[in-house]
Amino acid sequence: MSFDAIDVIITKRDRGELSDGQIDWMVGAYTRGEVADEQMSALAMAILLNGMNRREIARWTAAMIDSGTRMDWSALDRPTTDKHSTGGVGDKITLPLAPLVAACGAYVPQLSGRGLGHTGGTLDKLESIPGWRASLSAEEMLGVIRSAGAVVCAAGAGLAPADRKLYALRDVTGTVESIPLIASSIMSKKIAEGTGALVLDVKVGSGAFMKDVGTARELATTMVELGIDAGVNTVALLTAMDRPLGLQVGNALEVAEAVEVLAGGGPSDVVELTVTLAREMLAAAGLDGKDPADALKDGTAMDAWRRMIAAQGGDPDARLPRAAETMDVSCPADGVLERLDAYAVGLAAWRLGAGRTRKEDPVSHGAGITLHAKPGDAVRAGQPLMTLHADEPARFERAIEALEGAYSVGASAGPGLLPLVIERVKGE
Amino acid sequence: MSFDAIDVIITKRDRGELSDGQIDWMVGAYTRGEVADEQMSALAMAILLNGMNRREIARWTAAMIDSGTRMDWSALDRPTTDKHSTGGVGDKITLPLAPLVAACGAYVPQLSGRGLGHTGGTLDKLESIPGWRASLSAEEMLGVIRSAGAVVCAAGAGLAPADRKLYALRDVTGTVESIPLIASSIMSKKIAEGTGALVLDVKVGSGAFMKDVGTARELATTMVELGIDAGVNTVALLTAMDRPLGLQVGNALEVAEAVEVLAGGGPSDVVELTVTLAREMLAAAGLDGKDPADALKDGTAMDAWRRMIAAQGGDPDARLPRAAETMDVSCPADGVLERLDAYAVGLAAWRLGAGRTRKEDPVSHGAGITLHAKPGDAVRAGQPLMTLHADEPARFERAIEALEGAYSVGASAGPGLLPLVIERVKGE
Repeated sequence: MSFDAIDVIITKRDRGELSDGQIDWMVGAYTRGEVADEQMSALAMAILLNGMNRREIARWTAAMIDSGTRMDWSALDRPTTDKHSTGGVGDKITLPLAPLVAACGAYVPQLSGRGLGHTGGTLDKLESIPGWRASLSAEEMLGVIRSAGAVVCAAGAGLAPADRKLYALRDVTGTVESIPLIASSIMSKKIAEGTGALVLDVKVGSGAFMKDVGTARELATTMVELGIDAGVNTVALLTAMDRPLGLQVGNALEVAEAVEVLAGGGPSDVVELTVTLAREMLAAAGLDGKDPADALKDGTAMDAWRRMIAAQGGDPDARLPRAAETMDVSCPADGVLERLDAYAVGLAAWRLGAGRTRKEDPVSHGAGITLHAKPGDAVRAGQPLMTLHADEPARFERAIEALEGAYSVGASAGPGLLPLVIERVKGE
Repeated sequence: MSFDAIDVIITKRDRGELSDGQIDWMVGAYTRGEVADEQMSALAMAILLNGMNRREIARWTAAMIDSGTRMDWSALDRPTTDKHSTGGVGDKITLPLAPLVAACGAYVPQLSGRGLGHTGGTLDKLESIPGWRASLSAEEMLGVIRSAGAVVCAAGAGLAPADRKLYALRDVTGTVESIPLIASSIMSKKIAEGTGALVLDVKVGSGAFMKDVGTARELATTMVELGIDAGVNTVALLTAMDRPLGLQVGNALEVAEAVEVLAGGGPSDVVELTVTLAREMLAAAGLDGKDPADALKDGTAMDAWRRMIAAQGGDPDARLPRAAETMDVSCPADGVLERLDAYAVGLAAWRLGAGRTRKEDPVSHGAGITLHAKPGDAVRAGQPLMTLHADEPARFERAIEALEGAYSVGASAGPGLLPLVIERVKGE
């Protein structure tokens, strides 16, 4: 059946509901190049301002999935489960989490992305491991899952191509900040990935896309509904991103911290969130066996990590890249670190070279920031509060500018820090 | 000064006011091709849904004018005045009006357009006169004004090029129906045309773009304010377009009716509206001399018409084109014609060949509809209610389909016909 793009735009512009046929046609015709960019951007703005209901969002997501191929892991002998984070500063959780969940008896088939702006990307982090490859064929993915229990790799061009094209368009037309479009973008890729269960880590705070709990809850609820409507057992946690996660921000720095966690150590917030998410992933997959906290202690999670890295060409024993230059930022006073703003730390790490501005840019694997204190910690004047890492010393100045006003030292911990796990959202 | 297109879009998306600098930059950069179509269409949708205030609309209009050249008639020895109609069915008023106002002592420099869809265009009508040319250079325009007192011709490419580009974009992105964008589109061309005074004929009813008085009043008020803010003495009349204007609909048919009016005859509604608008145009130009009703009777308006047509290469005595085929539509019953829907008649004339679907299409100069009765007239079963004209008989069937349910015959005139002149809107 054929529709007219202008009619579809006008339907949503005038606050009407898009029919299933209109949605299927519009998304498909846009992907094939039969609907022009200027028509899709007008529709995206109308959707942003006038919204979509649950049926429309589900159909829109299904149409984006149907623009490509949906992977199928049903032939595997264990349940599949995955996690998706909406992105934050120092969020390296996928790195210990995927092998940990594999060590507890599930398969983890994770298609992941690269960083843009102040938040890092899982593939950029893993690529700091010498030899590791992000691009795998479907057969290679299956091989890695079978040998290591978990695979983290780049999505192929055949996965939700409508989303790829639409996301690039939204990025330049001021139509990113729409909950229906964000939710369908994320979920079209995760559903097409073929996982049987999914845990969403929706970050809240200055370093996250969602700045407040209310908006984050709305996004989480929409995504959980989309997953359930598509047959994926989905739950979401809202978690804190008002301060950075862990003590390391930057690609190789975060890999090192992930390995610490897999070795049974690491910062308490990273450990707590990794174990919490692992339990959710296993429960969503219907598994009730080994406790993830034990798998971090007995070395089985580390074994899975080493197999996973090696299966994708990486050397788990190789020395990680380090930046050529470092610079300490000193604490201005005695007292307690009241706050340490996640966005400012992310921006500083980006300026140090850890992130990219355009999709084509390379990243510096060694660049980033090591924190020596977190909010609530006692500090003394003159001690190093953080260490900046960069390949060129010229980068330090603008990174320090980004950190101005980003932290404060007082008599006691500041008010209003978010709890690490704020809330759990499950579907109906 | 340079701006970022995404910031401009987001400002309006989030219900903010666009600054003068943002508007100037966005309109200019779009015209130069530095802002992409998909960005401008997203902004147009945000403007349609969130509106613009008086300052924003005035600045947007000024930016569109500044994208090209503004004509200047200040060296002429008489005041200039013009009329613009928002378009209707059988609206040939410009044809008798321009020479009539010239005969009463003003200069009329009218840049006009072609028809699209069910409403006709003045240039299409005049082009049915053998030899008549719509395209004139600025020097030729000046020559015609000096010799005939009035000129009606096509706008050159240098007049508000931003509007030309934006209108084509809005047409395919569902962003036409925005009062700020409609008002600035019309007024940018009329202000750039350089007229000193302007009367707007805002049509209301099924055959018009504005279906109800409230919306028409809002558009009229916005346009009057824009004119006054730009130094053009502007007033508006809201006039009836629930039924066709006059008895002829179609290019050459309407020229013939205009000539009847210039000869002192013609249908009463066409005569009344022509004289009313002429008085408004003269008053807005500050002229208080000859009464237009007299100039229709004493032949001076006809003399001005003949000079105007001849000065643009046309032969005022040439036989007008006639369609090859005609077909009568018979009256179904005795009684009074209760209503005759303007949109249906316009659509039928379009299907007969009088209008075009795409800008590039030719029109049939002879095609159209001659009405033998208007609402309120007594009619008898079997008498011809209208005569259809077309070059190919195959066109009659779909025209008759368009007329189904478009008229009804009852015991007395139906309720709710709009008065010919509904309301006068002047600025503050």
